[in-house]
Amino acid sequence: MTNKIFMLMTFIGVPLSIIGTLMHWSYIVLFIVYCLTIIALASYMGRATESLAIVAGPRIGGLLNATFGNAVELIISIFALKAGLVGVVLASLTGSVLGNLLLVAGLSFFIGGIKFKRQQFNVYDARHNSGLLMFAVIIAFVIPEVFAMNMNETKTLSLSIGISVILILLYLAALFFKLVTHRGVYQSNNESVVHEEEEPEWSKGKAIAILAIATVAVGYISEHLVHTFEYVGETFGWSELFIGVIIVAIVGNAAEHASAIVMAFKNKMDIAVEIAIGSTLQVAMFVLPVLVLISLFFDSSMPLLFSWQELIAMVSSVLLMVVISNDGESNWFEGLTLLAAYVIMGIGFYLL
Amino acid sequence: MTNKIFMLMTFIGVPLSIIGTLMHWSYIVLFIVYCLTIIALASYMGRATESLAIVAGPRIGGLLNATFGNAVELIISIFALKAGLVGVVLASLTGSVLGNLLLVAGLSFFIGGIKFKRQQFNVYDARHNSGLLMFAVIIAFVIPEVFAMNMNETKTLSLSIGISVILILLYLAALFFKLVTHRGVYQSNNESVVHEEEEPEWSKGKAIAILAIATVAVGYISEHLVHTFEYVGETFGWSELFIGVIIVAIVGNAAEHASAIVMAFKNKMDIAVEIAIGSTLQVAMFVLPVLVLISLFFDSSMPLLFSWQELIAMVSSVLLMVVISNDGESNWFEGLTLLAAYVIMGIGFYLL
Amino acid sequence: MTNKIFMLMTFIGVPLSIIGTLMHWSYIVLFIVYCLTIIALASYMGRATESLAIVAGPRIGGLLNATFGNAVELIISIFALKAGLVGVVLASLTGSVLGNLLLVAGLSFFIGGIKFKRQQFNVYDARHNSGLLMFAVIIAFVIPEVFAMNMNETKTLSLSIGISVILILLYLAALFFKLVTHRGVYQSNNESVVHEEEEPEWSKGKAIAILAIATVAVGYISEHLVHTFEYVGETFGWSELFIGVIIVAIVGNAAEHASAIVMAFKNKMDIAVEIAIGSTLQVAMFVLPVLVLISLFFDSSMPLLFSWQELIAMVSSVLLMVVISNDGESNWFEGLTLLAAYVIMGIGFYLL
Repeated sequence: MTNKIFMLMTFIGVPLSIIGTLMHWSYIVLFIVYCLTIIALASYMGRATESLAIVAGPRIGGLLNATFGNAVELIISIFALKAGLVGVVLASLTGSVLGNLLLVAGLSFFIGGIKFKRQQFNVYDARHNSGLLMFAVIIAFVIPEVFAMNMNETKTLSLSIGISVILILLYLAALFFKLVTHRGVYQSNNESVVHEEEEPEWSKGKAIAILAIATVAVGYISEHLVHTFEYVGETFGWSELFIGVIIVAIVGNAAEHASAIVMAFKNKMDIAVEIAIGSTLQVAMFVLPVLVLISLFFDSSMPLLFSWQELIAMVSSVLLMVVISNDGESNWFEGLTLLAAYVIMGIGFYLL
Repeated sequence: MTNKIFMLMTFIGVPLSIIGTLMHWSYIVLFIVYCLTIIALASYMGRATESLAIVAGPRIGGLLNATFGNAVELIISIFALKAGLVGVVLASLTGSVLGNLLLVAGLSFFIGGIKFKRQQFNVYDARHNSGLLMFAVIIAFVIPEVFAMNMNETKTLSLSIGISVILILLYLAALFFKLVTHRGVYQSNNESVVHEEEEPEWSKGKAIAILAIATVAVGYISEHLVHTFEYVGETFGWSELFIGVIIVAIVGNAAEHASAIVMAFKNKMDIAVEIAIGSTLQVAMFVLPVLVLISLFFDSSMPLLFSWQELIAMVSSVLLMVVISNDGESNWFEGLTLLAAYVIMGIGFYLL
Repeated sequence: MTNKIFMLMTFIGVPLSIIGTLMHWSYIVLFIVYCLTIIALASYMGRATESLAIVAGPRIGGLLNATFGNAVELIISIFALKAGLVGVVLASLTGSVLGNLLLVAGLSFFIGGIKFKRQQFNVYDARHNSGLLMFAVIIAFVIPEVFAMNMNETKTLSLSIGISVILILLYLAALFFKLVTHRGVYQSNNESVVHEEEEPEWSKGKAIAILAIATVAVGYISEHLVHTFEYVGETFGWSELFIGVIIVAIVGNAAEHASAIVMAFKNKMDIAVEIAIGSTLQVAMFVLPVLVLISLFFDSSMPLLFSWQELIAMVSSVLLMVVISNDGESNWFEGLTLLAAYVIMGIGFYLL
């Protein structure tokens, strides 16, 4: 059913985006058309990646999921960087981290918890993820912020580059750890191994074709989307920060949000948590550092420097999530707590 | 025995407070009389609430305890707000958080731990409380502080109001979770259900009468107490901050301190921890946001903005408590660690 | 084998240090000779302390280890303080904390984890240590930093003295807890008691003689070592901060680094963790506060005030370590995460 809606959205949205762009429709209308079309295309990219991952087997498949899982955000961000919107990129990645950690996980815990009194997920994965969240946000994001206070721009950029390389290497090492050296080592007992036998939705060729076409379409739309931000902001009285942190982040992650919540509702919390926190880690340890390195080829380079508000919002969200998820259990109230934190951040960024 | 002392203190203290106020005794003498009388009255209010809670059954009773448990602090704070002492109110609520988290829990762990080598409490409750502590202090108190750096006063106040409403709603949701949807779900095995059969100390009518009279008396004395702060501070060389953080907080919580320690000494750690951390949460998620909203009707409104010293003191205390309490066990050394942290904060606020 | 190398290094290094000092060799050469000689002497001091500890029995032995374990750092720091290098002392103690927490523990986890898939250590000790790390760094180091923002120098020093006394007292209480009241209470099952029967390497007299001679030699060399920092920094373009945080810290802890890794490789993770985290706590709760108190007798007193970069580096390292170690398990990836954090800090302090 959802798939049919996304198909409809795609086949209406893509032509509409092209026509609207060429005919210079109102930026507000274009903004809405672009956003909805990207959400639909993102779902196609997700399904294509999923199919390829199943065909490729668990190891290469895990790698594929881990690199293409946030391709939409990467594409939007590259075009925003090209347009010199460094602040918007950092804001949208902050929003992606907050959205996945607080909104996606929060909704999963809450909605799953309304149906099931106590839900459990793999406690070893939860702790592994906690360590990575701490590393990425508390170390890799906090250190440049504090050290940059006494550094000039060149040194700050050097530090950013160094940290970005380390983040990417550690992200790859984490994949190696999970997919190769410690595959199945931390399996919890109740975890079925049935999901290995999944059938891919599409054949290899079809999946690659869809992935390629959708990527090009997302790229085309993203390039124009980023130019609407200024006008949308002015019209609604939204700051660029709010657009980045809340709007872009929700558009870029809508598909993941949906599937995590569906999984929680089926009591498959391992998968729901994996989507929410795995996606956070992917943004923090892969998308963001890759963008820092890509930005070196553009006019305005992007150091790993968030605003204090963005940084503290991420730090406090990570600390909250680590404390809440560390026991491998969830309930509706824990979900509500995460959602309440998201609303507080939302109000904060709206007023900023 | 303690009850007799408090009775004596009440029947001497209340008339003395009235006479002293009318006859304009020295502010130092009045300050001492007021403080001791409020401590005694607070114990009456606590016992009356307890009786009503037993009569009303566990659900309504839990709600009663959760709303009237810190009534004394609420009353003192309202009169301090009315007198424009916004700084003193924030300081005394900070002090209440620090006092409950470090002093009450510290003394409970320490004194209980001297008698018993290892003491245990419900680890599920401990984790539930950890999540709430993180939410209240690390999210709800930290965010306005950091966002206010780039906001004007109006926006800061809007943010404070929004966060206060969310805090109160989440506090009510937490009660709903504990008393309705997940009542008994996280029971530990060794927990007896015997304490359900408790007899109320006073009948419903008597309890309501005592609660009403004590509340009026506390209100009358609080109104005059807050006006002595300035003179007491000058005389002893104490800053208003120190008076708020240490003195008012101890006066407002003396009764709870006593009963938590008694419970720890009886090895009823579940109750001791519930008093210490439950009381912290009540101040942070109910008393404080209610005061923010009430302050809107007074001349000087109170945004949710602590001084950096107050904020960091609370943040670091919460982090320490979460790490120490998360295993559901305590011993004398953990108690001493909390007490040492309290002494450090005390010295800091004294010197400030 | 290692012992033979250290013997050689000592018997060549000590005369060379004396001759070089008298003949005013190049500061760069002297710096290298001093550093290598101190590393060798530190290993003698460690072995002598170990022998004395075995002779003295577990209680007094534990006390000996806990007070003389970081004697080299204490000696270097005293001479640096005497030379007025307050900043270098704070930097080298920061480096010692970071080095033990991230480098030593990281290498132990990583190298041990390459040989063994999952390594375990006493989870009770890990939690006990987590509480102390939080207390020392998050409370005792953070509070003076934040309170000093609104304090004059005299008050900052008073606060530093107060906190130092509390740190030392709590450190002694922790020893009392571990060696007396709760000795063996939190023993894990698989822990053998065989290591009680260890034979001391040296007799009591020989150990005391070696300890005394090595201490004098370390003192002599340290006094001259601290005067080479300025020139070495200029030559290599290193800041005093980098020399303190990275170079001095590695020199002062080389012996511990080696033995922790050897223990991890033998799957004796309890000992490896004890060396890494125990040494961190000793620096933070004993060496540092003792130096604050000693500095009062020198021209330039040392308040407990780190730079913001040093403080945040320690705070984030402690939070990372607490989250990683709290489950009493390790693997190569957790080790790599700690090492990655150390490299990030290293780059940061190098560029600063």
